[in-house]
Amino acid sequence: MPHLLVIGGSDAGVTAARRARELSPSLEISVAFSDAFPSYSICGLPFLLSGEVGEVSALAHSLDFDGLALLPDTPIAELDLGARTALVAASAAGRTIAFDQLVIATGASPIRPDLPGADLPGVHLLHTMGEGLELNAALVAGAPRAVIMGAGYIGIEMADALTRRGLAVTLIGRTPQVLPTLDPDLGALVGGALRAHDVNVLDGREVVAIEPGEPLGVVDSVGERHAADLVLLSVGVTPNAELGAAAGCPRGRKGALVVDRSMATPRPGVFAAGDCATTRHRLLGDDAYLPLGSTAHKQGRVAGENVAGGNREFEGVLGTQVVKVFDLAAARTGLNDVEARRGGFAPLTVDAEPWDRNAYYPGASRLHLRITGDRGSGRLLGAQLVGDAGAEVAKRIDVVATALFCGLKVAQLADVDLSYSPPFASPWDALQQAALAWEARR
Amino acid sequence: MPHLLVIGGSDAGVTAARRARELSPSLEISVAFSDAFPSYSICGLPFLLSGEVGEVSALAHSLDFDGLALLPDTPIAELDLGARTALVAASAAGRTIAFDQLVIATGASPIRPDLPGADLPGVHLLHTMGEGLELNAALVAGAPRAVIMGAGYIGIEMADALTRRGLAVTLIGRTPQVLPTLDPDLGALVGGALRAHDVNVLDGREVVAIEPGEPLGVVDSVGERHAADLVLLSVGVTPNAELGAAAGCPRGRKGALVVDRSMATPRPGVFAAGDCATTRHRLLGDDAYLPLGSTAHKQGRVAGENVAGGNREFEGVLGTQVVKVFDLAAARTGLNDVEARRGGFAPLTVDAEPWDRNAYYPGASRLHLRITGDRGSGRLLGAQLVGDAGAEVAKRIDVVATALFCGLKVAQLADVDLSYSPPFASPWDALQQAALAWEARR
Repeated sequence: MPHLLVIGGSDAGVTAARRARELSPSLEISVAFSDAFPSYSICGLPFLLSGEVGEVSALAHSLDFDGLALLPDTPIAELDLGARTALVAASAAGRTIAFDQLVIATGASPIRPDLPGADLPGVHLLHTMGEGLELNAALVAGAPRAVIMGAGYIGIEMADALTRRGLAVTLIGRTPQVLPTLDPDLGALVGGALRAHDVNVLDGREVVAIEPGEPLGVVDSVGERHAADLVLLSVGVTPNAELGAAAGCPRGRKGALVVDRSMATPRPGVFAAGDCATTRHRLLGDDAYLPLGSTAHKQGRVAGENVAGGNREFEGVLGTQVVKVFDLAAARTGLNDVEARRGGFAPLTVDAEPWDRNAYYPGASRLHLRITGDRGSGRLLGAQLVGDAGAEVAKRIDVVATALFCGLKVAQLADVDLSYSPPFASPWDALQQAALAWEARR
Repeated sequence: MPHLLVIGGSDAGVTAARRARELSPSLEISVAFSDAFPSYSICGLPFLLSGEVGEVSALAHSLDFDGLALLPDTPIAELDLGARTALVAASAAGRTIAFDQLVIATGASPIRPDLPGADLPGVHLLHTMGEGLELNAALVAGAPRAVIMGAGYIGIEMADALTRRGLAVTLIGRTPQVLPTLDPDLGALVGGALRAHDVNVLDGREVVAIEPGEPLGVVDSVGERHAADLVLLSVGVTPNAELGAAAGCPRGRKGALVVDRSMATPRPGVFAAGDCATTRHRLLGDDAYLPLGSTAHKQGRVAGENVAGGNREFEGVLGTQVVKVFDLAAARTGLNDVEARRGGFAPLTVDAEPWDRNAYYPGASRLHLRITGDRGSGRLLGAQLVGDAGAEVAKRIDVVATALFCGLKVAQLADVDLSYSPPFASPWDALQQAALAWEARR
């Protein structure tokens, strides 16, 4: 029976294995991973650490591994794609696993910045379940003051989480505003929500050193020193591509493994999916790198289908993202004005601040909505949206993502028969008001 | 200066007038309407009557009538499309208004069922602002017991509203479950929410008579008699098409005025829009009748644009609707299985009960989701969705509506890069889980 080896037990790997299992009864399928947490939602770690989720086990996406051989605590040190063997790291007598087909889903690792003190005790990274549990242990032991370096998605989610956990939090980001995937003035709204909950947000600064001691001393580029019982470094991730690359799989954007739309690497019978692989951006073309759980599932499914003899293409990402920060939701999809210009479009970007529902309905709030389209063709290119967490921000950005997926023009958004009832929308939904405003400005 | 007369001061009429004003500085534009409430949100009446909205004036959509001559309390009795004049009803000396172009936006009227006692004092209809204010006066005067006849959108919104207002409410509907635009088992969830809030829901019964007295006596088809201090009849609406029809405009479905995709009637220079006109269903073709505020705005805009010399087509409806009932939201778009079969498709309908967000996140709830697609082509045909009011039900159905607008296949829903973060969605959004379940069953 041919053997499929999947390396990686997170979203992409387990999804690929499951999909191959569904489609191909004749494959033997093993999933080798380096920890003890198959198919866990690492995106849920901030909510475990905040105390909103009580049990580690709740983070398991699913415990259904029917027909899969799970190999926990099985890090792979080396691949021989010619001999079709994988060498298990640090194993007695150089244990190897033979395979016929391979899915590399080794994920990504958080970047540990190159600065003095970055590896001191009390300085944490947060990407794996293991790192999350370490951080949780530090919180249980008592750590009243936290400094977070990096104001991207993880940084601001953790600023929220640690504040909820009762810590005094300082958030240091090098960009002019937090959440740099949004335009700065929209990021400033998120920064405002953090400050309103007493997070000490310091924009436009870098951490230059972490000094040992109890507490640690975090020195920033302005020369201020911040006392910290724990430090969290959240300055992004880098693909775990070394294993595949050393075996001869080429690397692309950000060093991730190059794949085609079938999720195949150029090496026969070797697929890659998830945070270790490049991705296709629907508006910008192939060879992008946007490591996200939602994408890892989709890529894993495509890889699993093709391993099992299917003929499926990955349809690409749009850069859709959403984050909750206290009572605010911030989301984006597609391209902002700068990205659109860089991508060869002639963008027009228009703001609107429509109500999320009929203004008279209790709880109505203003949305901060920004639409980018191509001036010449009228084509929708992207949207950014910040609003109340209860204002259906996530699914509003999904309406835009769906329109982007289909290549709609901005003005066509206003033609769609969207649902209307005063508790949920206006007769022209907020998105449609913004679309009409865009078209009027064109 | 050519004169555009718009008959009707609600959504379609005012939107048409405003759009013509934007595009054509050379038109004189008048809006004649029979009451004193131009551009009011009659969809907001239940929330005024519930007490959730405090002030009648809050229901005004907008007070911007710049460049429009408003003619309140000006009902039109007769049109002469040859002479281009409109006769004002009950006016001294037969006052007429001359026009060059005409938009008929006379709306719809609630149906008063033909049963004994239907016109007794204390028996109410609810469609116009005037009817809403009358009903409010009855509530202010004190009316502890209400009986509502009709369990469609207005009936169930009013059952919620009057319960909030402190009344004991009986809701009598002739269909097996409330909200018959949903499949019965999904309607039953809405009925359950009403019952959980002590509404006396009586399904499968008709009101056969209303007996005079204080209280009134509502007799149902089972022979039960329900004491009522007020009765609300909400059994649907009928288009106000008599004025146009008497002037020679043909009538179509449900007696509504026939329009083409430009919102023109067959009579030159005469347009119709909103609840008095037929509409185009994107999946079923022209000559549908689906009177809704959101559609009225879109049709009015198209009519106003074409009156002003434009060349715009109405893109059609999908039958998208949402309603809030206590803590539940119920929504639909497109076709259900029965409608699809009747429409010539070979439907497959599949249920799913996915979580609205990652199951571990506080407040997560199960959605009741039903997807209909065409088995042969794989094309998405519609969805029904019932879930918590906080589960982004409205905008989830809008994602489906956008996909329907674009003609996506069911399986393609799972390819869209939708937003993911544990507080708002799962890595495969609920819609995508349902889409994958549909495809697996196909």
